[in-house]
Formats: sequence, structure tokens, C-alpha cells
Amino acid sequence: MATSPETEHPIKAFGWAAKDPSGILSPLSFSRRATGEKDVQLKILYCGVCHSDLHMAKNELGFTQFPMVPGHEIVGIVTEVGNKVEKFKVGDKVGVGCLVGSCRQCTMCDKDLENYCAKQILTYSMPYYDGTVTQGGYSDIMVADEHFVVRWPENLPLDIGAPLLCAGITTYSPLKHFGLDKPGVNVGIVGLGGLGHLAVKFAKAFGCKVTVISTSIKKKEEAIQKLGVDEFFVSLDLEQMQAAAGTLDGIIDTVSATHSLFPLVSLLKPEGKLILVGLPQSLEVPIFPLLIGRRAIIGSAIGGLKETQEMIDFAAKHNILPDVEMIPMDYVNKAMERLLKSDVKYRFVIDIANSLKKE
Amino acid sequence: MATSPETEHPIKAFGWAAKDPSGILSPLSFSRRATGEKDVQLKILYCGVCHSDLHMAKNELGFTQFPMVPGHEIVGIVTEVGNKVEKFKVGDKVGVGCLVGSCRQCTMCDKDLENYCAKQILTYSMPYYDGTVTQGGYSDIMVADEHFVVRWPENLPLDIGAPLLCAGITTYSPLKHFGLDKPGVNVGIVGLGGLGHLAVKFAKAFGCKVTVISTSIKKKEEAIQKLGVDEFFVSLDLEQMQAAAGTLDGIIDTVSATHSLFPLVSLLKPEGKLILVGLPQSLEVPIFPLLIGRRAIIGSAIGGLKETQEMIDFAAKHNILPDVEMIPMDYVNKAMERLLKSDVKYRFVIDIANSLKKE
Repeated sequence: MATSPETEHPIKAFGWAAKDPSGILSPLSFSRRATGEKDVQLKILYCGVCHSDLHMAKNELGFTQFPMVPGHEIVGIVTEVGNKVEKFKVGDKVGVGCLVGSCRQCTMCDKDLENYCAKQILTYSMPYYDGTVTQGGYSDIMVADEHFVVRWPENLPLDIGAPLLCAGITTYSPLKHFGLDKPGVNVGIVGLGGLGHLAVKFAKAFGCKVTVISTSIKKKEEAIQKLGVDEFFVSLDLEQMQAAAGTLDGIIDTVSATHSLFPLVSLLKPEGKLILVGLPQSLEVPIFPLLIGRRAIIGSAIGGLKETQEMIDFAAKHNILPDVEMIPMDYVNKAMERLLKSDVKYRFVIDIANSLKKE
Repeated sequence: MATSPETEHPIKAFGWAAKDPSGILSPLSFSRRATGEKDVQLKILYCGVCHSDLHMAKNELGFTQFPMVPGHEIVGIVTEVGNKVEKFKVGDKVGVGCLVGSCRQCTMCDKDLENYCAKQILTYSMPYYDGTVTQGGYSDIMVADEHFVVRWPENLPLDIGAPLLCAGITTYSPLKHFGLDKPGVNVGIVGLGGLGHLAVKFAKAFGCKVTVISTSIKKKEEAIQKLGVDEFFVSLDLEQMQAAAGTLDGIIDTVSATHSLFPLVSLLKPEGKLILVGLPQSLEVPIFPLLIGRRAIIGSAIGGLKETQEMIDFAAKHNILPDVEMIPMDYVNKAMERLLKSDVKYRFVIDIANSLKKE
């Protein structure tokens, strides 16, 4: 049984936590473990607000352990390293994403796919090896095994870059893995939010032709003029959808709400792939169009640590940055409300260092 | 507009056809085209009865053109060849499966995947290049372009081998394409009917460990003792299913009725593939297990001509034969009734040459 994190460990930490399934966050004093021999301790500067922080705060996936400090888009400065740490030194800029542990010996870990390890440890609300529950980045200090820490490129802004650690890798990984990363490839992106706008930026940087598919025409101008997408389809416009049938090599579907896959599957070429990175509970899938084109519906979740480093380096090199709204810590509950209404372009980032204050 | 096949062509043919969506078959005199320069004419000896013959006879897919002669597991002897035919001569034993045409110039055709060509022409109930409607193998004579004719291996029985042309290639193709064709690979087969029993035989011949997954325990003894499957899971036995979670590399799901994919997806290893070859209209898919393991749900339909020839040759070499019940032509309506109740082990084959008689 996981033990309480408040007093278990020697290092005093402070953050904001959900304390029950209302999902409302409020200040919490807790503790972090002492920096182990392979651990890196960091002062947290910024932390992105991910939709799953909200799902978890409300225990919508059913495994939240309260009190829970959310946050897995963590950027900071190394303040201490264990004596066997090889990759980092005090003063380094670093990031911590969704994972802080995995078994390191299964087939998936061997392939640098810690994100598909059955024993992976999420950055918050999961039992760590020592039996305590992990706590995330809406807090002042973080301690993590260096394997799960990424080096922050010199020219990548610390503040607005934070969402790359979840929203970035979540979209970069399937684009790369499924070959949707080349000029001449036609990629569809469903949903233009925190994930979707980064999917567009990566796909454009890869040289793909990018089509955004949305339920409403409202975002068309913004998509084309601000993000430079090549085409914009309204999924309810049957005529437009039929005219585009069989034209896309792959689709990254970022939508977490229940939605129809019927119009999307038909857009795929034979052997095309519809990749789901959002988290609806279940979706109804049309079978005939899958069969007649060996089309696939595939799930994808974040990425491994090696690929996360590669993604961060690629983003720095190609100047791919999330569009963010910077907020103070005490705005987080309001931010969550707005997130629920998709009222953000496109990601909130909490200015932890300048606004997280002990009361 | 497709024209009527009864009198369009010079060659008189005779078969049994569905004449309306009741799906009841009765005798029909119709016509076949003269043997073109690339065509092969054959005397039909045997034809398998596929579940899609029944779907099509009842117009359940919505594009049946009545009167319709079903049948796409056709085995016969060449009786005439066009002057540009290269592969066959009079007297050769041959087979015709589900396809008689495709565009021959798209990306899919270039990859020998005529089965995913958007302009493919099915063996029955589709407009052929000359505007007439194709008619299938519940008949005495067939004419087909040699590209869509397969050579029948000398040692493969003509009669009971017929179902390989649809049920065989439908299961062989995904096993091969998705790497489920090696010793050490764990394959699940859902549904033990016409398709399922051949999937088991191919997977066993490839050296895979084979698990049959069924809704009831009734077929267990038969599956293990007659087909030599290694494991048998009852999908409603939650304890057994949970114990087996994450153990299968791939699953071939042959079930055409609506059914739950929830227990199946959980059986897959990370990066495992659930391949659907049956034809339910739509199915509800659980998203979380797809995401956390990059698992895929993929459709697969028959195979290309090159792969069909490869499958037939493999079956001959490894003595893989369908289990069939041989029936006379006038039993076909009764056979359809029994098919609907899965009351056949495992495929009906019509003894065309010995039982199709003009009244």
C-alpha cells in the first residue's frame, strides 16, 4: 500500500494539490525523497497544464490517489545530483515529462519505449519504487532518476517550451513512428487544441501537406493564416468529406470527447492510419472501410525518453514552440474551468518560480 | 448503367441466382462473354459457399444487382484460352477467387494488392469493363482475365480445396503481412468457422502458438483435439482473460456478428494487432488499452493475386485443407439456412459438375 507523501521524505516541498474528486486545487505542503545516487533534484520554474491533469484531479480514470499534485510538463534548473549521475550537473536546464520510472528490462524498455512498459511510473499519482506516491510539477522542487530527465536545449525558451514535454511528444511520436514525417505525405489533424496545434507545427516542419479537420468552420482562418495549414475540412460537410475520400496517408486525432470516426476513416488512403492520441472512453468504429483498405485505428501515448530528447532537440532546431498563456499558480482553478471549455490558445503554463508562494 | 447479363453475351451459361432480397436461389439461364485475348474460359467443377454469398444474396451490403449468381471460391478446368494468354492452357486446373478485375495501375495494384484497388471488380454483382454485371461460380462456365486466375497445384484436391480461394487467403494474408507467421509468435483466433478453422491451420503450419477465443466452451475439445490449438479461452471467463492479458502478438477476428472487442484488445501485447476479417457493420472500441500499448485495430480483406497463388502453393505443400461438407446444387438454400446458424463444419462446397442440371 502506498504511504502518504506529506511527511515520508526528508525534503520539504510545496505545491498545489487536488484533495478530492471535486478536482479543486489548493496549497499543500508535502515531501520529496532525498536525491538518490542516480537522481537529479531540480528547482521547478514552469509547468504546463495538460488536459489529463484535469481528468486525474477529478479521478476520471479511477486511479487517482489524493492528495495529488498534478503537472507533467516540468521545466527547471538542476540544484543537486546524485553521485552516480552522468548526464547532468548543477545549473543545467532540464525537463521532466509524463514518466519518472519504468522496469528498464522488458521488451518495450529495451526498445526505448518506456511509455509502453507495463510497469511505467507516471509523474504523479502512482506508487514509486519506495512505496510513496509520485507528485507532479505544480510544485517548487522535483526529484527524478536521470534516465527520465531530458536536457533542455540552450536556445529553447524555458517558459513557453514546457508543453512540448507532453503535448509535443504525444504528437511528434506517432508522426515519426508511422512515417508521417516526410515531404509529400498528406497528414490530417483532428482537433486544434493543445495537442493539435503542435501536431500541425511538427507536421509542417517535416514538410507534410497538413489538413485540419474540425467540427466547425470557426477555426479555419486561424488555422490557415496563423498555423499555415494547407487545407481545412469541416467534418459535418459531407460533400467536402466525400470529395476528399481516400486522400490522407494518416490522421492524428487529438480529440478526447466522444466523436464519430466514420467521416475520418473514409479520408484515409488504403493502408492509411488513424492514430488516436486523445482519451475518449470508447468510440464506435466503422468496419467496412477498414477492411476494404487495410486501414488501421491505432492508439499512441506520449513517447519514450530517447524520442522525447530527440523531439525537444528537433523543436529547438526548427523553432517549434507551443502557443501558450502564462498564468500564476493561484489562477489554476480558473484555468481548469477554461480548459474544460477549450477556452485557451492553446496551452496554459504556470509560472511556478514567480508565483508559487507559501501562504 | 450496367446491362442485363441474361442475353448480352454469346456464351450460354446456367447457374443458380438470387432474384430478389429474399436471398432464395433458383435456376437462371444467363450468358458469359466470349473468351477475350487475355481471358481464360473454364468449366466449373466446385464452388465454395461463403458467408458473403448470403449477405449479398440478401442485399445486406446494399449494392447487389439482381439477378445475382453468387460464388467466389471457384475451381475448374480450362476449356479455352485467348490468343494472348501466357500462363494457362486448355486442361489446366485453375481457381478464381473474389476478384476478376482491378485498375492495374494504382499504387495498390503496383504493390500486387489488387484487393485494395479502389476500382477492383468483384467476381459477382459488379459492373465489368464491358458494362455487364459479373456473375459468380454457382454456375457451369466462367470466363476471367488470366491475371485473376490462379494455378491449382497438382497435389491439392480440387473439391475440398475450393474454400482456400476466399476463406484461405482472407486468413493467410494478415498472418503473413503482420508478421504472425513465425515460430514463437502467439496468435489468437476469434471464431471457429469457415475462416477461423483455416486461420488455425495456417498459423499452426507457420509454427505459431495458437489460442482460440470463443464465447462458449463448447468448441474446446474439438479445437484442441482436432485442430491442435494450444490454448482455448472463453471470452466471458473474466478470470481467464485477465490472467492472459498482454500475451498475444496478434489476433485474427473472424466474427461477422456484432461482438465486444473489449476483452480481445486487452489480450494483446504492446504493439499487438487485432485484425478484423469479418464484417460487422460497426464495433465499439475501447480507447485506453489502445493508447497505453500502441495497439492497433486493422481491417484486412482477402489478398492480392500474387499472394493468393503463394497461399495456394503453401497450402498444397503443407497439406492445409479446409474441412468441408460437399453438397449438391439444389441443397444450396438449405445450406444457406444452416450457414446462418453456423451449422456447418466448416465450409459448404457445391459439387457443381455433378449436380448442376438444367431443368
